[in-house]
Amino acid sequence: MKRLTTALALILATSVSAEPTATGDLGLVIERAKGSVLLVDQSDRAALARIEGLGDLSHASLVYSPDERFAYVFGRDGGLTKVDIVTREIAGRVVQAGNAIGGAISDDGKLVAVSNYEPGGVRIFDAETLEMVADIPTDSKTIGLVDAPGRRFVFTMWDSGETWIADLSGDEMEITKITDMGENPYDALITGNGRTYITGLFGEDGLTALDLWEDDPKPIRVLPGYGRGKKEMPVYKMPHLEGWALTGREFVLPAVGHHEVLWVDADTLTETGRTQTYGQPVFAMARPDGRQVWVNFAHPLNDTIQVIDSKTKTIIHEFKPGPAVLHMEFTPRGHEIWISVRDAGKVMVYDTHTFEKLREIEADSPSGIFFTARAHRTGL
Amino acid sequence: MKRLTTALALILATSVSAEPTATGDLGLVIERAKGSVLLVDQSDRAALARIEGLGDLSHASLVYSPDERFAYVFGRDGGLTKVDIVTREIAGRVVQAGNAIGGAISDDGKLVAVSNYEPGGVRIFDAETLEMVADIPTDSKTIGLVDAPGRRFVFTMWDSGETWIADLSGDEMEITKITDMGENPYDALITGNGRTYITGLFGEDGLTALDLWEDDPKPIRVLPGYGRGKKEMPVYKMPHLEGWALTGREFVLPAVGHHEVLWVDADTLTETGRTQTYGQPVFAMARPDGRQVWVNFAHPLNDTIQVIDSKTKTIIHEFKPGPAVLHMEFTPRGHEIWISVRDAGKVMVYDTHTFEKLREIEADSPSGIFFTARAHRTGL
Repeated sequence: MKRLTTALALILATSVSAEPTATGDLGLVIERAKGSVLLVDQSDRAALARIEGLGDLSHASLVYSPDERFAYVFGRDGGLTKVDIVTREIAGRVVQAGNAIGGAISDDGKLVAVSNYEPGGVRIFDAETLEMVADIPTDSKTIGLVDAPGRRFVFTMWDSGETWIADLSGDEMEITKITDMGENPYDALITGNGRTYITGLFGEDGLTALDLWEDDPKPIRVLPGYGRGKKEMPVYKMPHLEGWALTGREFVLPAVGHHEVLWVDADTLTETGRTQTYGQPVFAMARPDGRQVWVNFAHPLNDTIQVIDSKTKTIIHEFKPGPAVLHMEFTPRGHEIWISVRDAGKVMVYDTHTFEKLREIEADSPSGIFFTARAHRTGL
Repeated sequence: MKRLTTALALILATSVSAEPTATGDLGLVIERAKGSVLLVDQSDRAALARIEGLGDLSHASLVYSPDERFAYVFGRDGGLTKVDIVTREIAGRVVQAGNAIGGAISDDGKLVAVSNYEPGGVRIFDAETLEMVADIPTDSKTIGLVDAPGRRFVFTMWDSGETWIADLSGDEMEITKITDMGENPYDALITGNGRTYITGLFGEDGLTALDLWEDDPKPIRVLPGYGRGKKEMPVYKMPHLEGWALTGREFVLPAVGHHEVLWVDADTLTETGRTQTYGQPVFAMARPDGRQVWVNFAHPLNDTIQVIDSKTKTIIHEFKPGPAVLHMEFTPRGHEIWISVRDAGKVMVYDTHTFEKLREIEADSPSGIFFTARAHRTGL
């Protein structure tokens, strides 16, 4: 807690609030080194409490219950921790696998799914009790797990190149298996409307999409001439596909191994442009109105952020928040952005219109920032 | 309270909760005859409390603060009431004009604006205190007030056919006036990304759009050959433009005076199709994933709902919830829909995938249903 201020320590000492709490503008910041999460308030631009004991959070993410009260935190060590952000306590925790990589929550908020490397597969838990309700072994490292409308989960196998759709809307779970998604898919995303699922490929050029509105979805090749491919360019960090940004009719895709982002038509899945960037992009995130795209970069250029205007596709702002910019999260209506600067031990808050820095908040090796408004969106 | 059940009465008796409250899955239902709002819980599909004393709610709407704690209710009588849904009490109330028609909240949650018929204009209030911070007389009935990114409000004059953009991001408010929007605009909407503002016209055929991403927005004519126009078809109820649905690349527009909805390309603003409906549509609302559009109808056909598949543009389901279906609200991720059936004195909850009725909730002449997730969206 070396960077913890006295003010924050005082707040933490009285961390169980007796006051009525509204949760719409709260959030959690992953403190990766400590295995803790920092509860934050967007409106006050402040830290409220630290909740500890979540295990290995070196590559962690989380989802929220529909009431924006509980966070389900997916740790790298297979831990699934349910955090109550109202009482500011851990409400439940299971270690459900040896090595996990992300999770999702069903559209009705009743089921939480976790994607595992070891043993490979997906396990689904009751969101209330954390009891396991389904175990789906896949004989493969399993990646790109997302929720889809109709109490469905979609996920993909690194080893076999298959995507499976698990439908839990009926009495019996139904699984649809789609083969030939490509060689070694390494991550995936689903569009905000839950229609298009896209996997990035490590073993071959390009990406693969599925139209989940089809009765019998077939793999659609996307940008087949582009990607990491066989060229073995030095890739410092594979970009996060979940960071892909949708701005009106276009996606913005962090190019793999190149200093650029790609613009892709969301319907035809063809390239519509490129923007040269300062480094290899990691996240390219659209402000909620789609007008701006904020990009951070892989080591050693990870002290910098560039802002792209999505209408002109040009860079309109560049600045250096500090060492190791790991993640960004917009307020739900996009007027501010919160940025994790890991090696500065700070989360920084900026106005997205003036680019003015509004606040610095102490945090211990902050990485992912997750605001509660995610509860209301698909695929986050 | 003739329809109030004993169970609800018991709940109301202990309506100030001592329990921790999360607000992400709550909502308010306007009870138009009583001047009250009913606090509801989406997850429990239940009424929690009634809050009374809001004046004339015969044509009321509301917006939420970013923390999803406070609702700002805009009454027809010019009343602006701030409701605390955590303590379940009125937190403030001003009667700010003689006759009002809707309001909006700025993207930072600091300003609440109200659109007035009498005296015509817009008044802007501090969201915390309800003190007036700006008064914008327009010499006209003022309609179609929405919030836009960057602490802006956009609104339109029935009498003069002008649209004004009030920018409150700086020290001094700046107003941009756009003339020639058409004859007698009667309502307007802004798209979810805050880019396109569209007004419906009463005095001539068609609609008018503005691209707010332009530095100097100019009126764009939309469907100039369509609308109520001069033909004087019997119009039982003007459709609500805020109910326009965006499904992927298309809008769905309730046709004025016809038994059909129109499909319009969101980019080119040209017509892409029509679907014949049971009656004159009032609201045509897209499920959040865009796959379905639910339509209700004007009197005397207002006992019926039709569901349109947005991929095929065909009607896939029709049913009669009961007399006087006034409003519909989807859960944020679209798995359920709540429907106000005024003359049955009930709100009905349906599964949007199976169309099964899940619950009936007693309410006194229910009209608008507003879930707290609206806090995180533009233009609602």
